[in-house]
Amino acid sequence: MAIRNFVNFEARVKQWFSKMKRFPVVELKERVSSIFVKAGVDGNDARILADTLVTTDMRGVYSHGVIRCARYLDCIKVGGIQPANQPIVFNSTANSLQVSANGGLGIIASVKTLDQLLEKAKGQPVSIATVNHSDHYGAAGYYSMRGADAGFLTFSMSNTCPLVAPTGGRASTIGNNPFAYSAPGNKYRAVLFDICMSKVASGKIQIAAEEGHAIPDGWILDREGRPTTNPKEIYNGAIMLPFAEHKGYGFAVMVEILTGILAGAAMMSGVHSWNEKPGRDANTGHCFMAINPEFFGGTDVFKSKIDSMIDELKSCTPMNKDCPVLYPGELEAIREKDAMENGVPLPEASVAELQRAEKIFF
Amino acid sequence: MAIRNFVNFEARVKQWFSKMKRFPVVELKERVSSIFVKAGVDGNDARILADTLVTTDMRGVYSHGVIRCARYLDCIKVGGIQPANQPIVFNSTANSLQVSANGGLGIIASVKTLDQLLEKAKGQPVSIATVNHSDHYGAAGYYSMRGADAGFLTFSMSNTCPLVAPTGGRASTIGNNPFAYSAPGNKYRAVLFDICMSKVASGKIQIAAEEGHAIPDGWILDREGRPTTNPKEIYNGAIMLPFAEHKGYGFAVMVEILTGILAGAAMMSGVHSWNEKPGRDANTGHCFMAINPEFFGGTDVFKSKIDSMIDELKSCTPMNKDCPVLYPGELEAIREKDAMENGVPLPEASVAELQRAEKIFF
Repeated sequence: MAIRNFVNFEARVKQWFSKMKRFPVVELKERVSSIFVKAGVDGNDARILADTLVTTDMRGVYSHGVIRCARYLDCIKVGGIQPANQPIVFNSTANSLQVSANGGLGIIASVKTLDQLLEKAKGQPVSIATVNHSDHYGAAGYYSMRGADAGFLTFSMSNTCPLVAPTGGRASTIGNNPFAYSAPGNKYRAVLFDICMSKVASGKIQIAAEEGHAIPDGWILDREGRPTTNPKEIYNGAIMLPFAEHKGYGFAVMVEILTGILAGAAMMSGVHSWNEKPGRDANTGHCFMAINPEFFGGTDVFKSKIDSMIDELKSCTPMNKDCPVLYPGELEAIREKDAMENGVPLPEASVAELQRAEKIFF
Repeated sequence: MAIRNFVNFEARVKQWFSKMKRFPVVELKERVSSIFVKAGVDGNDARILADTLVTTDMRGVYSHGVIRCARYLDCIKVGGIQPANQPIVFNSTANSLQVSANGGLGIIASVKTLDQLLEKAKGQPVSIATVNHSDHYGAAGYYSMRGADAGFLTFSMSNTCPLVAPTGGRASTIGNNPFAYSAPGNKYRAVLFDICMSKVASGKIQIAAEEGHAIPDGWILDREGRPTTNPKEIYNGAIMLPFAEHKGYGFAVMVEILTGILAGAAMMSGVHSWNEKPGRDANTGHCFMAINPEFFGGTDVFKSKIDSMIDELKSCTPMNKDCPVLYPGELEAIREKDAMENGVPLPEASVAELQRAEKIFF
């Protein structure tokens, strides 16, 4: 049943996909970049932001693409994010890096931290970087893919403000704590896995709300912590439940430890995502790790084994002969290639938020 | 509904627990140790095995405790595991270690590798070790807890022979790939999270089979890949389905990459768990990572933040006022303390397998 739901969901995504207006990649990046420059972001940093957000849309992760521009600008407008602040490295060893985002944009701090980490990773079997005093860092998978494209098995994660109830609890206590990893192949560019810890992404619940049908018991609680099948509660402070009960909960705790605690950022109720209070920062924490396959039998061997693993996964007999087994990240790879060739398809909500963003600093 | 199931399951575990015969810790370890010595295992190695298996039972993870003795001995008897073979370090840097278990017992190779890793971890922000040419390594969480007790945030994982169908597939293609992490606290000894990638542990399905009731759709497929609600199929080559659909699948792939590929072990269909073929080994792979909090603001601060995090999790209003929210590893900690004080409770199946083990080399 669960599998059929998944397939149906993908079919619906494809249907949407065919209706979306498309935007040429280069023009869309320039448009996003110029929005941030007008908000006081340095030109190079604005290009980093544009690449991160547009690439995420190209992979079909619309919840973390250009739709976020306006919300970042809302925070900048009221002083909750300092658009010109640069990240500060406050500790560095041969294979580790501790960075403060310094109250600036989470994406800027994360890309710069990751790129420094990947430099270290060239000469190290395993390397780690943390970021504190940050804000929303966009899609976790953007960073892991950037690491995979550089030849490393790469992990990326962040905490968030409390959104999820622990197993057996009825209040938002821990973040939805996104986690991603990517591993490079040859024939296949990479494995890409990017998830958060709730049972169902809020986007799926919003679809149910828009389509006017009930959601299964166990997806969310209402704001008072009562079980509900009404998807509209997602717009009314609903509490997310973790995937696979104690498993999603335990992974959320893992990410909290690696970000909130290890990075020296805020944790749980101390995190102020989408901070709009001048004089403080959200103090979100991130963590990145890179493993260099060159130290484990060689990068070429590693990549060819990734290819073999994917081939073996894809050779599994499918439940439904029209739906071959996918490897993690295959849908994103298909969408990214298509967007590169035919333009970036954007849902109406993304276009509307992009238009709203263009008006915030005019 | 899922939460209620979980609570009911725990209630049933408690009921079992009260009926079990108890064995004093020291005597049980000596009994297990002497079984392995008679099978040709070195005395010190036998004590390592005994500590690993008995500690796992003390935490209530009966599926990976002394119940496994007989199966290890079955493999030794026919030459599928070489009981006297010692692990070989074939690559070592300041913060990495690559080890071959050399066809010996997986637990011995894993404990020795981990202990060498923890030595390196004293002087490094992050360290990693891999093991290949290994076999079943017992409970993943034994190693992560050993690392946490030494003061490190520690990860442990292993691949297995194919047991799980990828999302959308209908054949056993990837392992149930256990994954564990532990993080030390002060007031609380540690967070301990130890899972495998199937929707439901096979033990839960065996309970349903014994109690004679159907299991929900979506837990397993029969050996032909057809959906089934008959729990008895677990004894007939049933195929496990991953937890949370693509999420469990993606984590299984992550572990396969870190073990089968990075460790240079076999992967997927190449792994021969419970190998009984003389002249080859199972070639299971393991991976361990240790992060030293001393490099990230200090171990004392880290431990006190773990305590604060647990306090905040436990302060969440529970769904059921008689079931307070638990932190990951709390049940295991309660059981281990109880077993230390009152003896190790063992299910009948564990006692029977222990008795069988005592007869294999006599």
